[in-house]
Amino acid sequence: MGEHMTIFLVSDRTGITIESLVRTLLTQFDEVSAERVVRPFCDDADKVERVVAEINMAAEADGVPPLVYSSLVDEDLRSRLKRSRGKVFDIFDAFLPALSDALHMPSSEHVGKAHGIGDYHDYDQRVEAVNFALAFDDGAKVKGLEEADLILIGVSRSGKTPTCLYLAMQYKVRAANFPLTEDDFMQGHLPKPLQAHRDRLFGLSIAPERLHQIREERRPGSVYASLAQCRSEISAAENLFRSERIPFVDSTNMSIEELAIEIMQRVGVERAW
Amino acid sequence: MGEHMTIFLVSDRTGITIESLVRTLLTQFDEVSAERVVRPFCDDADKVERVVAEINMAAEADGVPPLVYSSLVDEDLRSRLKRSRGKVFDIFDAFLPALSDALHMPSSEHVGKAHGIGDYHDYDQRVEAVNFALAFDDGAKVKGLEEADLILIGVSRSGKTPTCLYLAMQYKVRAANFPLTEDDFMQGHLPKPLQAHRDRLFGLSIAPERLHQIREERRPGSVYASLAQCRSEISAAENLFRSERIPFVDSTNMSIEELAIEIMQRVGVERAW
Repeated sequence: MGEHMTIFLVSDRTGITIESLVRTLLTQFDEVSAERVVRPFCDDADKVERVVAEINMAAEADGVPPLVYSSLVDEDLRSRLKRSRGKVFDIFDAFLPALSDALHMPSSEHVGKAHGIGDYHDYDQRVEAVNFALAFDDGAKVKGLEEADLILIGVSRSGKTPTCLYLAMQYKVRAANFPLTEDDFMQGHLPKPLQAHRDRLFGLSIAPERLHQIREERRPGSVYASLAQCRSEISAAENLFRSERIPFVDSTNMSIEELAIEIMQRVGVERAW
Repeated sequence: MGEHMTIFLVSDRTGITIESLVRTLLTQFDEVSAERVVRPFCDDADKVERVVAEINMAAEADGVPPLVYSSLVDEDLRSRLKRSRGKVFDIFDAFLPALSDALHMPSSEHVGKAHGIGDYHDYDQRVEAVNFALAFDDGAKVKGLEEADLILIGVSRSGKTPTCLYLAMQYKVRAANFPLTEDDFMQGHLPKPLQAHRDRLFGLSIAPERLHQIREERRPGSVYASLAQCRSEISAAENLFRSERIPFVDSTNMSIEELAIEIMQRVGVERAW
């Protein structure tokens, strides 16, 4: 694709669904160098017409019709968007008729609440899970660990904190994490506070080279960051996981999302909706 | 819909995109009481055949064909899934041909990396943003605030922390937050550490009744949680936002996602891909 191209993402709410969809689709093409324009909260005719004007300008400037991915519940807004000079693909157009058929229900056409607050109960649960993850981060607290849905363990900088926060934020999972240190390796068994919670423990491992790189960012030139130290800690951690029969995963080539999903699946934590 | 129905979400990676899509579609129907089954990481024939067997069992048990939403890049895996007794809707089927056309490029059919690690740089940026949000949570640190992309301000429990963490996690935004307290209201101006960063300040407000409810969970019966106290703090905070011309939003009926998107849009922080 030599020419410049623009991709619009238009939503009546946050645009998160459409963003995720377009990202997934674009993984199937190497080197798409399109410009991306996101327009959330387009929930009335004026706002949609402003986006239509932007699309038409981009069509003019690019010389090719922009691609427009949208999630607009309202049919009138969708038709307005379709009168633009872009190629419009709307997820409701694509999937709603068949779903409505299958459910034997008409769709209600109220603006989506997929990423809306829904109800306070749901919001409160998420915030509680985030607060839990913060309170039980890095072994900061052990009293109350029995309330954890799962407990991630691993050496410093193996990715425990972001994974716990992601689990809390997205899936309302109460995820604690606990660091494994040289003391634990010397003793050759699980840290005491963890022993009562074996069924909810999950280990994170990581390639020594990658850990070295991460730690170097933090404390350049330190023993802590040295490759030898990383090698020794990771090998000891993996030995501990094996001898204590704790499931673990190598996080080196995994994103936070992948880690979260894999861990929930293997520990058997339900993926809340 | 009287009968029991099952909805399968099948992905060769995390299933996050399809989860978001189905959630969005289902907002259009009231009271859909379908059971949801998520099957991530279905990236070979065996795994897909196991899901096919589950779908067929559900079809048998429910007496109606399950709905199956999938994101399977591989065409062979998609055809296997389609030979099940479910009604299969795949996002690549739905959108890829037209996208390929528009880009004048064949799709590569390698398994999606939409929520894969992509590259370490991206991962590192996210983790850095999360660490930044943690370090600059609740006014814990003021030195280095100039590195923040934005700074949320508001009274205690107005939603600052989860919003900052979400911004960091999803959009790599370096978001700090700073609490507004009675001292600040007495003085009638912005806390000193914030004065140099006006252009990146954003206020969170909330309905007093809702704040009261949230605080009661934490400290039942306290002055801190009382409706009178909540009213007084929020009114003072909003006065401060107005007199200092700081943009703000009422978070009462907004989800964390909506808050994050709205704030990025209004402060003019780019929504990273």
